[in-house]
Amino acid sequence: MPSPDELIRGRYGIKPDASPPFAPPNEIPAGLAAILDRRVTRRYRPEPVPEPLLATLLAAAQSAPSKSDLQQYSILLLQDSVKIAAIADWIGSMPWIKQAPVFLLFCGDIRRGRRVCAIHGREHANDNVDTFVNATADAALAMAHMILAADAAGLGTCPISYVRNHVEKIAPMVGLPKGVFPVAGLTLGWPEGPRNWLSPRLPQHLVVHRERYDDSGLEAALPAYDAARPPAKPRYPEIHGPKPEGCGWSENAARQLSVPERFGLRSWLRLQGLSLD
Amino acid sequence: MPSPDELIRGRYGIKPDASPPFAPPNEIPAGLAAILDRRVTRRYRPEPVPEPLLATLLAAAQSAPSKSDLQQYSILLLQDSVKIAAIADWIGSMPWIKQAPVFLLFCGDIRRGRRVCAIHGREHANDNVDTFVNATADAALAMAHMILAADAAGLGTCPISYVRNHVEKIAPMVGLPKGVFPVAGLTLGWPEGPRNWLSPRLPQHLVVHRERYDDSGLEAALPAYDAARPPAKPRYPEIHGPKPEGCGWSENAARQLSVPERFGLRSWLRLQGLSLD
Repeated sequence: MPSPDELIRGRYGIKPDASPPFAPPNEIPAGLAAILDRRVTRRYRPEPVPEPLLATLLAAAQSAPSKSDLQQYSILLLQDSVKIAAIADWIGSMPWIKQAPVFLLFCGDIRRGRRVCAIHGREHANDNVDTFVNATADAALAMAHMILAADAAGLGTCPISYVRNHVEKIAPMVGLPKGVFPVAGLTLGWPEGPRNWLSPRLPQHLVVHRERYDDSGLEAALPAYDAARPPAKPRYPEIHGPKPEGCGWSENAARQLSVPERFGLRSWLRLQGLSLD
Repeated sequence: MPSPDELIRGRYGIKPDASPPFAPPNEIPAGLAAILDRRVTRRYRPEPVPEPLLATLLAAAQSAPSKSDLQQYSILLLQDSVKIAAIADWIGSMPWIKQAPVFLLFCGDIRRGRRVCAIHGREHANDNVDTFVNATADAALAMAHMILAADAAGLGTCPISYVRNHVEKIAPMVGLPKGVFPVAGLTLGWPEGPRNWLSPRLPQHLVVHRERYDDSGLEAALPAYDAARPPAKPRYPEIHGPKPEGCGWSENAARQLSVPERFGLRSWLRLQGLSLD
């Protein structure tokens, strides 16, 4: 495992000959070092995940905290290669989905609470945007626990928010009833080949605000952050024009955020029985 | 660390003399065992968290995956005891907030993307419910990484969704600008006294659906799950009546979900510049 200095440099994309942005402790426990070194896996070997390990990883996902202990989420576990290939084909641009032997769909789930209310003869009164936040956060917390549990067991994962581009097909394929909605997918399997690059994060002072929100340093900090990352494939070249030398993070973020993504999700959520009022 | 069987039994509230609900692997890596044994901390010693460790834990939070690498969240780091006490007093029922030397507020952040678009001369076009899900999930993923990083370093945490009951006071206190909204708070500090009990989770077959969603076993499974947990303080006794013997999980969930919580959040989000369209 790299040294604490190397871990912090890597996480923030600082060159090996430069100082890290802050001095970490001289020693870091292995579990913390593993989190600092987390990266996605986009190439998988075909071997299945043994059932005892898979069930244990799912128990680790369930070990996540949950708002008021209500556990307002569900996980769809797909190992049927036909279903997994359908999702990969609908998304189109992520071939590693088809390679992975397991695909997990993390969903917010308001249905269970509705049923529990009915069983106890009470009227469910929490179909509002706050419950939607609770269910979305529960699903994301469970996914994060699954990701780090899989890492600890030597497996790899890749989160797939693009399942939300195809909710109208994925939801009926896995039989999602009203009140249940996809937050993100996750590929799971044994990594093949070298590890993925470590995606450098925005400087800590832009994301962490001490006592009061203050992003006055954003514009000044972006050029160095953009330069710390290899130039990426320009997003939406058909709309914004090509750029042979590639794009920095901030330019690509602006390219992506200027095209409305999944703007129909609210309508679909209504069809799915979620009012978001 | 307990054996794999003991970890799985504990997580699902199965008595020590009964079989676990499934056979885990004979050996489990330490990192995975720690996740299976995760629990909240509601008593803290007054010692501060040293700055090098705190910055490293925040880097671990930033190591979480983020939708399209856009990092649409912010963390407010509070160590000012006046601010932390104000939050504790507003919530009223959680004295451990005041004990903890650090309080973190995990926020969805659409503002940064808006500014990045403006810097690059593009119009931000993603103020919709999908972006709201992305930002909420980003914040929750970062919080989960912070929780497990803190655990690995011997610290303890407790997530506080109740910050959303007081957004109209907390947001101005920490200067949240438009486009930034609290998802959850998190207390952080050195644990005092024995560890909290391990909160047993719903049976895996109710939360994990193999290939297709199927919750047909819910009603039959609830009595055993309710019995596996110690009876809890009845929620909303003023509304639903007292219950001296306490409530099982499902009855308390029904009690809680039949009273609308934070039903004004959508209106506040609009004031805060989030349209949720």
